[in-house]
Amino acid sequence: MALIVQKYGGTSVGDVARIKSVALRCLAAQEAGHDVVVVVSAMSGETNRLMKLVAQITDRPDEREQDVVVATGEQVSIGLLAMAIHAQQGKATSFLGQQVRIVTDSTFAKARIKSIDAQPIRAALARGHIVVVAGFQGVDESGSVTTLGRGGSDTTAVALAAALNADACEIYTDVDGVYTSDPNMVPSARKLDRITYEEMLELASVGAKVLQIRSVEFAMKYKVPLWVKSSFTDDPGTLVCEEDSSMEDVLVRGVAYDRNEAKITVCGVPDVAGAAAKIFGPLDEKHIVVDLIVQNPSKDGRTDVTFTVGKADFLTAQEVVRKVAEEIGASGIETDGDIAKVSIVGVGMRNHSGVAARMFRALSAEGINIQMISTSEIKVSCVVQAKYTELAVRALHTAFGLDQPMPPEGVSAVSEMAALMGEKV
Amino acid sequence: MALIVQKYGGTSVGDVARIKSVALRCLAAQEAGHDVVVVVSAMSGETNRLMKLVAQITDRPDEREQDVVVATGEQVSIGLLAMAIHAQQGKATSFLGQQVRIVTDSTFAKARIKSIDAQPIRAALARGHIVVVAGFQGVDESGSVTTLGRGGSDTTAVALAAALNADACEIYTDVDGVYTSDPNMVPSARKLDRITYEEMLELASVGAKVLQIRSVEFAMKYKVPLWVKSSFTDDPGTLVCEEDSSMEDVLVRGVAYDRNEAKITVCGVPDVAGAAAKIFGPLDEKHIVVDLIVQNPSKDGRTDVTFTVGKADFLTAQEVVRKVAEEIGASGIETDGDIAKVSIVGVGMRNHSGVAARMFRALSAEGINIQMISTSEIKVSCVVQAKYTELAVRALHTAFGLDQPMPPEGVSAVSEMAALMGEKV
Repeated sequence: MALIVQKYGGTSVGDVARIKSVALRCLAAQEAGHDVVVVVSAMSGETNRLMKLVAQITDRPDEREQDVVVATGEQVSIGLLAMAIHAQQGKATSFLGQQVRIVTDSTFAKARIKSIDAQPIRAALARGHIVVVAGFQGVDESGSVTTLGRGGSDTTAVALAAALNADACEIYTDVDGVYTSDPNMVPSARKLDRITYEEMLELASVGAKVLQIRSVEFAMKYKVPLWVKSSFTDDPGTLVCEEDSSMEDVLVRGVAYDRNEAKITVCGVPDVAGAAAKIFGPLDEKHIVVDLIVQNPSKDGRTDVTFTVGKADFLTAQEVVRKVAEEIGASGIETDGDIAKVSIVGVGMRNHSGVAARMFRALSAEGINIQMISTSEIKVSCVVQAKYTELAVRALHTAFGLDQPMPPEGVSAVSEMAALMGEKV
Repeated sequence: MALIVQKYGGTSVGDVARIKSVALRCLAAQEAGHDVVVVVSAMSGETNRLMKLVAQITDRPDEREQDVVVATGEQVSIGLLAMAIHAQQGKATSFLGQQVRIVTDSTFAKARIKSIDAQPIRAALARGHIVVVAGFQGVDESGSVTTLGRGGSDTTAVALAAALNADACEIYTDVDGVYTSDPNMVPSARKLDRITYEEMLELASVGAKVLQIRSVEFAMKYKVPLWVKSSFTDDPGTLVCEEDSSMEDVLVRGVAYDRNEAKITVCGVPDVAGAAAKIFGPLDEKHIVVDLIVQNPSKDGRTDVTFTVGKADFLTAQEVVRKVAEEIGASGIETDGDIAKVSIVGVGMRNHSGVAARMFRALSAEGINIQMISTSEIKVSCVVQAKYTELAVRALHTAFGLDQPMPPEGVSAVSEMAALMGEKV
């Protein structure tokens, strides 16, 4: 008998019929002999409805009170799901964040979980109940309601799985797993059977929106086996797990893209110590997150500094940087909102050279100019003109052998792929 | 400086504009120098919306889980109102039932308050905050969310006023006070300045829907001065308070009616000991509340037993009684759903005879046949054919001198009224 934490997102509990079908899934897992803990989000559209009410009251809502309002969405869901399980002659008890002491810090609207009291859940499981827990919400040390930020229910589920030492955490969503790329863009994209926590983190950070980043970090930290599954099919889904040797054999696990960034170049920056600090300090003060940064080699004592920010921060960032450019005696700024970042991710590239070069060749072969490059241990990202997004992603998907079915694990995929590509890795 | 508990019902917080206007009222009370605690209901329509969701899940909802769902309505209201106060540069903190330990028994959907922890409220008041408390909800000993039943927010307000030893509890609603009768039915009905707790209880129990009965009982028990006021005007409203000698001078305070009952007669009941128990025991088992009961004098060893039940229970009651009638050898049952109960209420009738007789004369003068009669110390109720409701209520309103303005308190109203009526009391 295993202890399983299941999480159902907003579309999975989007209406009464779907809530009833989630109830049947929970009961099926229980009938299969498992202890079942279910985390649910607000019914789809509900959080937006509540945020609209808030916006009508004030455009600067008090964050503590905003959390009081938006936390109700999940509360409705847990009550309805518990009832739906009862209606099927099952046993279920719902718990609010506060009732299982999901204690968070007091950063309203994006609180972080500090501890969970597993005892009430264990007691209900021991009585044969399915335990239904409100996602997204917690309570701070002073007893105020807090919320974890959009997508926070994933984090609730993983944190519960860690606290209960669960055998698995299953994230049910409207897709049936993690894909080698966005299937809407790449028709040959294939569902992955497994992916490492680190790869999932990198994919999430470069735009693949299957799981909330924090939930993956949590799962990695506590080694919680994390399944991404569809609540509409019986597909086994994708397992997000620790890396093992067989997983290193795949050079690139997935290709992702992000069209949500914009580029700013500060031209002719006097190449003196502290210039970078003068540019990025004021951005940090405005809480603007800078992603890629590239500094050209200095020429005649001047250099160009280029960086990307989220499109939501684009206008504010321009204002800040324009002022800074003047102060430091730069010659001016250039901006470009029409860019995309394409990325390849895979733990296999840790042990293999030439991956970045192969990526650049694949893009070049399609005539795509690379504007910026950023690399990590298991990721290479290139900024290109936005119009090339689809072409670039598809080219990379093909170039790294992702159009073909994955080889059975244990077989060296890299050597096979190298053979396919007609070159040495 | 006084401590005032204000309660705003669903229509008073029915939309964002009204919530903003409630915020201004709260701030005005604070600016007048008072400590202000505000209890709010769910926005009008919200509780019904939630109950509809529940009904779509199951027609026999688990009561614990139903309370989890419906308690969210008030939670949204407190967050929005606290935000609206903030938006006006005020200070406010919202509290859920659980956060101020409004501890109730575990009778979900109609829980009763056992205790309240005034400490968090006093602490927030001491910091200069307006305290916004969710009405209608509490928490049982095991930490489950409970609700107090429809209209329960009135009870929350009065219970808080008692726990805080408040100087006044103001119930804001969409009418500006308690009237001598339903103004929609009796154009000459007048707003009362004062009414005793007992009179208010009797009026509520016979169909006047201004306040929830339990909240009046609570106010009477803890001697909380209770104001009924309009949230749309500045009218001083009606004070519900303890009886003093001047209030006894008014014979009849108000005339009420209730069209929500139905009548069942068990005919030819063998007049043996225990017959009544055999009829009413099974009704009690089905939790059907019986209101008026009349038993005719026995004739030839048989008698007729007539009683009224709420219309919602009419069909079930008929089934139960038909079975019982057979078992006890009664000759059959007769039913009538087309009735109304009209009542006169006033503490003054305690010390004066002839009130009931005057009521019967007034009805008789209009040709209205009285089907059943019930009396208490301060109330007389008559069941009549439903079509006579308006006529009966208006006739009684006139007969007991309620069409005229109340005499100033302290002057003997009874003698004045007797003079008006041209008869001795």
